[in-house]
Amino acid sequence: MPEKPRLRVGLIGSGFMGKAHAFAFTTASRVFDLPFELELHTLADATAELAANAGRALGFAHSTSDWRQLVDDPQIDIVSITAPNALHKEMSLAAIAAGKHVYCEKPLAPTVADAREMTEAAEAKGVKTQVGFNYLCNPMIHLAWEMISGGELGDILGYRGIHCEDYMADPDSPFTFRHDPTGGGALADIGSHALATAEYLLGPISQVMGDCVTMIPKRPNGQVAVRRVEVDDIGRALIRFASGATGSVEGNWIATGRKMQHDFEIHGTKGALAFTQERFNELHFYSVGDPAGRRGFRRIEAAPDHPPYGSFCVAPGHQLGFNDLKAIEAAGFVDAIAGRTAEPFNFKAGQRIQTLVETIQESSRTGRWLVV
Amino acid sequence: MPEKPRLRVGLIGSGFMGKAHAFAFTTASRVFDLPFELELHTLADATAELAANAGRALGFAHSTSDWRQLVDDPQIDIVSITAPNALHKEMSLAAIAAGKHVYCEKPLAPTVADAREMTEAAEAKGVKTQVGFNYLCNPMIHLAWEMISGGELGDILGYRGIHCEDYMADPDSPFTFRHDPTGGGALADIGSHALATAEYLLGPISQVMGDCVTMIPKRPNGQVAVRRVEVDDIGRALIRFASGATGSVEGNWIATGRKMQHDFEIHGTKGALAFTQERFNELHFYSVGDPAGRRGFRRIEAAPDHPPYGSFCVAPGHQLGFNDLKAIEAAGFVDAIAGRTAEPFNFKAGQRIQTLVETIQESSRTGRWLVV
Amino acid sequence: MPEKPRLRVGLIGSGFMGKAHAFAFTTASRVFDLPFELELHTLADATAELAANAGRALGFAHSTSDWRQLVDDPQIDIVSITAPNALHKEMSLAAIAAGKHVYCEKPLAPTVADAREMTEAAEAKGVKTQVGFNYLCNPMIHLAWEMISGGELGDILGYRGIHCEDYMADPDSPFTFRHDPTGGGALADIGSHALATAEYLLGPISQVMGDCVTMIPKRPNGQVAVRRVEVDDIGRALIRFASGATGSVEGNWIATGRKMQHDFEIHGTKGALAFTQERFNELHFYSVGDPAGRRGFRRIEAAPDHPPYGSFCVAPGHQLGFNDLKAIEAAGFVDAIAGRTAEPFNFKAGQRIQTLVETIQESSRTGRWLVV
Amino acid sequence: MPEKPRLRVGLIGSGFMGKAHAFAFTTASRVFDLPFELELHTLADATAELAANAGRALGFAHSTSDWRQLVDDPQIDIVSITAPNALHKEMSLAAIAAGKHVYCEKPLAPTVADAREMTEAAEAKGVKTQVGFNYLCNPMIHLAWEMISGGELGDILGYRGIHCEDYMADPDSPFTFRHDPTGGGALADIGSHALATAEYLLGPISQVMGDCVTMIPKRPNGQVAVRRVEVDDIGRALIRFASGATGSVEGNWIATGRKMQHDFEIHGTKGALAFTQERFNELHFYSVGDPAGRRGFRRIEAAPDHPPYGSFCVAPGHQLGFNDLKAIEAAGFVDAIAGRTAEPFNFKAGQRIQTLVETIQESSRTGRWLVV
Repeated sequence: MPEKPRLRVGLIGSGFMGKAHAFAFTTASRVFDLPFELELHTLADATAELAANAGRALGFAHSTSDWRQLVDDPQIDIVSITAPNALHKEMSLAAIAAGKHVYCEKPLAPTVADAREMTEAAEAKGVKTQVGFNYLCNPMIHLAWEMISGGELGDILGYRGIHCEDYMADPDSPFTFRHDPTGGGALADIGSHALATAEYLLGPISQVMGDCVTMIPKRPNGQVAVRRVEVDDIGRALIRFASGATGSVEGNWIATGRKMQHDFEIHGTKGALAFTQERFNELHFYSVGDPAGRRGFRRIEAAPDHPPYGSFCVAPGHQLGFNDLKAIEAAGFVDAIAGRTAEPFNFKAGQRIQTLVETIQESSRTGRWLVV
Repeated sequence: MPEKPRLRVGLIGSGFMGKAHAFAFTTASRVFDLPFELELHTLADATAELAANAGRALGFAHSTSDWRQLVDDPQIDIVSITAPNALHKEMSLAAIAAGKHVYCEKPLAPTVADAREMTEAAEAKGVKTQVGFNYLCNPMIHLAWEMISGGELGDILGYRGIHCEDYMADPDSPFTFRHDPTGGGALADIGSHALATAEYLLGPISQVMGDCVTMIPKRPNGQVAVRRVEVDDIGRALIRFASGATGSVEGNWIATGRKMQHDFEIHGTKGALAFTQERFNELHFYSVGDPAGRRGFRRIEAAPDHPPYGSFCVAPGHQLGFNDLKAIEAAGFVDAIAGRTAEPFNFKAGQRIQTLVETIQESSRTGRWLVV
Repeated sequence: MPEKPRLRVGLIGSGFMGKAHAFAFTTASRVFDLPFELELHTLADATAELAANAGRALGFAHSTSDWRQLVDDPQIDIVSITAPNALHKEMSLAAIAAGKHVYCEKPLAPTVADAREMTEAAEAKGVKTQVGFNYLCNPMIHLAWEMISGGELGDILGYRGIHCEDYMADPDSPFTFRHDPTGGGALADIGSHALATAEYLLGPISQVMGDCVTMIPKRPNGQVAVRRVEVDDIGRALIRFASGATGSVEGNWIATGRKMQHDFEIHGTKGALAFTQERFNELHFYSVGDPAGRRGFRRIEAAPDHPPYGSFCVAPGHQLGFNDLKAIEAAGFVDAIAGRTAEPFNFKAGQRIQTLVETIQESSRTGRWLVV
Repeated sequence: MPEKPRLRVGLIGSGFMGKAHAFAFTTASRVFDLPFELELHTLADATAELAANAGRALGFAHSTSDWRQLVDDPQIDIVSITAPNALHKEMSLAAIAAGKHVYCEKPLAPTVADAREMTEAAEAKGVKTQVGFNYLCNPMIHLAWEMISGGELGDILGYRGIHCEDYMADPDSPFTFRHDPTGGGALADIGSHALATAEYLLGPISQVMGDCVTMIPKRPNGQVAVRRVEVDDIGRALIRFASGATGSVEGNWIATGRKMQHDFEIHGTKGALAFTQERFNELHFYSVGDPAGRRGFRRIEAAPDHPPYGSFCVAPGHQLGFNDLKAIEAAGFVDAIAGRTAEPFNFKAGQRIQTLVETIQESSRTGRWLVV
């Protein structure tokens, strides 16, 4: 068996998502038979010391406090960007210019225009791109897609999708960069996941009627000051799919008690699906075809029947974790770089989500239905 | 102990809801210490034979095929109306004119104008009225109200309420009176429950943005014909409460797999509640005040702590059924007639729900937010 | 349609179970097409005043402080006994001697010998009898039985059944009659339900290995005294069924947090069932025959498909309550009196449960497996 | 920051558990700040080709078809044993003799005598040992332990623990090495997990009354033959803890529909816990101290409040997977090797579990309670 070619990863950022990327590449290279040998090459962070320590901890051979140096390093093939959102565009464009494949955390960019510029740059340069919409990497979400595509649900009639958490629910939690206009708000931050799942499962959303509201209008800013919040705490929308199906979505970061309520329910003429990310190794399926008196929502547990679960564990019901979803995401990107598969969720897809977010926000401002 | 005065009940209709009313009065008079002795006096139905058989089965002393005779009978104090919706107005007005207290099933009337006429007639005559919004009679819903009113949830930030069933989900199920314009549609038929619960818990809804859609546009009408459906299969709305809280509601009669998904979730600054009618003897409560590392949604089971559960059963967790909710509803009406309490859900309240329904429908037609 | 013959009920006791019997007869006569018209004739309680008040509230025409007078009243056909357990035998024998049909709350008698005497008396006299094992009256339990009998689960391999509550979990709750040797203990009091369900579903238990333990050995008895508890707080048993299936049961009245954990799980070669009385309108069914990748426990909700649910409500998912189970129980007894059906759970069946309880207790004392 | 010392891992076996060990070491070295740099040194498997391929895939620098060579390699510090159970003893003793720290999958050995020999060899040599009881590594299990130890549940009254799966439920699934006497049976194979959890949470079990049954007595052995199964399909036991608490356990590999039903429920005087491995990122807690009318089982979701969850993810509710539990297990072993902590579950602990298993089996054979 010949040696696999190597793919060298440069990672910018070592916070929540930086760690997740490092774990993901590490796990992916063990769990999957990837077309490349992955090498954690360089970690960039704000200071040399931070970068050195995090780099060592996360398994990178080199570190730097200068992300431009990482981006320009001819040794590096993939640039993973987990720096603050405001830097996503600049870093991505620099990495693309240097001919790197780019794996950027969401949100891709603060505006559709920015996202489009990034997408076009990548397409022009011919590099592969990826945005981190990891919830789509769940085998149970793939199963849902497969069931819908295969007609097991019949014609789709209705959809309800939400992504609710409570990390901003405390009115005394301070103003952060997420609360100023460039921060995006709840719809952009997490509602985007609900939108991504909706389109992944049912195809393009064609019309939206949005309602984006700020429920906690002022937040503490330092010891005594307060500052006005200019983004939505909850973004809701009525939606129409191009397929004719209709539904609603909600992104909400003040949903007290909810840590990971990325849920959906889909009703079709032949069956229905219900899912909650709170128990993301399960998919609940109702089949009209079951015998009378024996119908009910069936709790399907993740198992080797549901790829790529079996790559992680050969026994059913043992369950994947959040970091495993990121590993599937990273593996998908590596496969795309090798040309094995299409990019699972590239910059164009990220641009699409940003388009949906902005259209919903614009709809909310004008109080009108808008075509996406 | 003196004899209680008697209250004589005349019931029109002996179908699903007719039976439920009969069961309700019977159970209420045993479970509660009512201010009146209830007497099931006369049952009216379409034919003399139907009426006689149902009357005997349900415990009525008399029967008639002429509802007007029932309404005019000076012996009768309460008229319960469970006839087809189209007759609610005529029957109610006749009963009011005869000085009866009227307990009418929902929907009260096909239009707000009709409902207002009925309300005004009742007020002018000084009789008590009641509309059947039985889900509000659940002790756990009362508990939710009590917790919200008492400040246990803090300021309310968000609301999601739905009422979804699947009795119209089969595209081959035939056209019925519910599918023509006077039938109302899913929003009027069951979305009205979601609206009633929302206002019961959080106070008046002040603005709505509706989306009422017909997903199954034609239904079989006889052996070979089909007929166009002119009402909504799903009615969704974005809503604002006068209190400042925001939310959404959905009424849906094509929600495959769902038999009684009357659910809500409420997020406040201090806590949250989650409820599903599928398990209506439970209320799930999250308290921000619980110690760190010990927080979580708490499944409170119905118990004598939650009146009037204890009137049915002195032991916790034994559970009430649907007919028990109707008995609580009937008892509330009887208490109101005695002047013990206000009417729990009178014609004016029914008119209010119809106003919400029509405003949402109008909003859907115009694609604009409307003030209620 | 000819008048139905009348059946006159005398009820002894008006506490928790007395009320439940009164509600049950009332509801049964409305919900079901019974072969008799039921008449609540006389209520007996400890004092004339108690009896008069409760009798009026519960709908009885007469009342008495002398249960013997009730038992001897030639007008009365059925005697319902909900008096303290210690009186069950004396009252039942008197009622049988007077030729009444007897509906006695569980436990039937403190010893098998007593129960046998009562059973033989009833058989000799030719009257019908009933013991209150209402959990068996649940349509979902009947469904479970039907599925097992019909082979939908294949050969039964294993069984786990419990009945756990927490009404004795507080060590400071006082000594009561339930704690002295004639009180029976947790196994007799509620473990008996777990045993009844096990045999209802899988047929006779043939061998037992019991473990009956007193975890709270002393309880307050008055202000300062304590008294030694002589009955079990938890009764567990390993069991073998005559069919060859094996399993375990537990009765536990100190199961903190549990109000109605009457649960079972059954594994067969073709399928499995899981049930909890905490959500008793559901039965969870796993079918090996479902397609690969689509298997899972299916939550079947009670519906008109599951008789006699439809007698209470024509729509699925609306749910029965505890008192409805008692109404089904009462109706079953009335049908048996009319000769329509066999007695659902007669004194002989109650004697059988007492035999199981005593055998488990004896096994616990000797530390040996015993044949039942 | 000085370089960390290196610890070189040799892994025997690359099946289900071999992969899990490789993943675990890889993840542990990234997620935790371990005292050593871990190096995947050599993989041994049945043939050179198997070993080479698996070694490359799992990230080992070297491979061999001779496990003795791996064990004797002076470069290697840790030997991970995931070979068939029958080889655990021989391999462990050889590795211990070579001075290696040994991480052996469960069951440690087929008999207590063997396990004791292995334990004593390790103690004599002064090497660290570990047996794979990964379910104990769950942060929610640690939380349960912490709550019990801290008195949040008061005095413990009762325990129910099970570990049920269905990988042997199909009577047509063939005879394997697990079905012959040295295979151990369901109690040894997975009931051991239930026993480990019981003792981890409540301390030593002092007495047992076992019931080990073979429900599928013959299994296919080749095309036409059948072979008699000599081990238990279900092992149940009534148990007493040294603390005075009582309970029951069950190991069951024919529990149709169950993939990972490693569950327990614990009742104390002040609170209760309920857990299922099917949703292992949750722990359900009932507190008697909650206000009246507000009590209920509270679903605590895994969060950074519950170490070491936060090392994997800084946000609550994102969830760990099965492989993460193995990573925690591996990290615990590495910490023990460094002397930071005691061995989490060493050979002596594995011997203890084997002692419990054999005592229950012996009790089952004799039909008597046995002291452990």
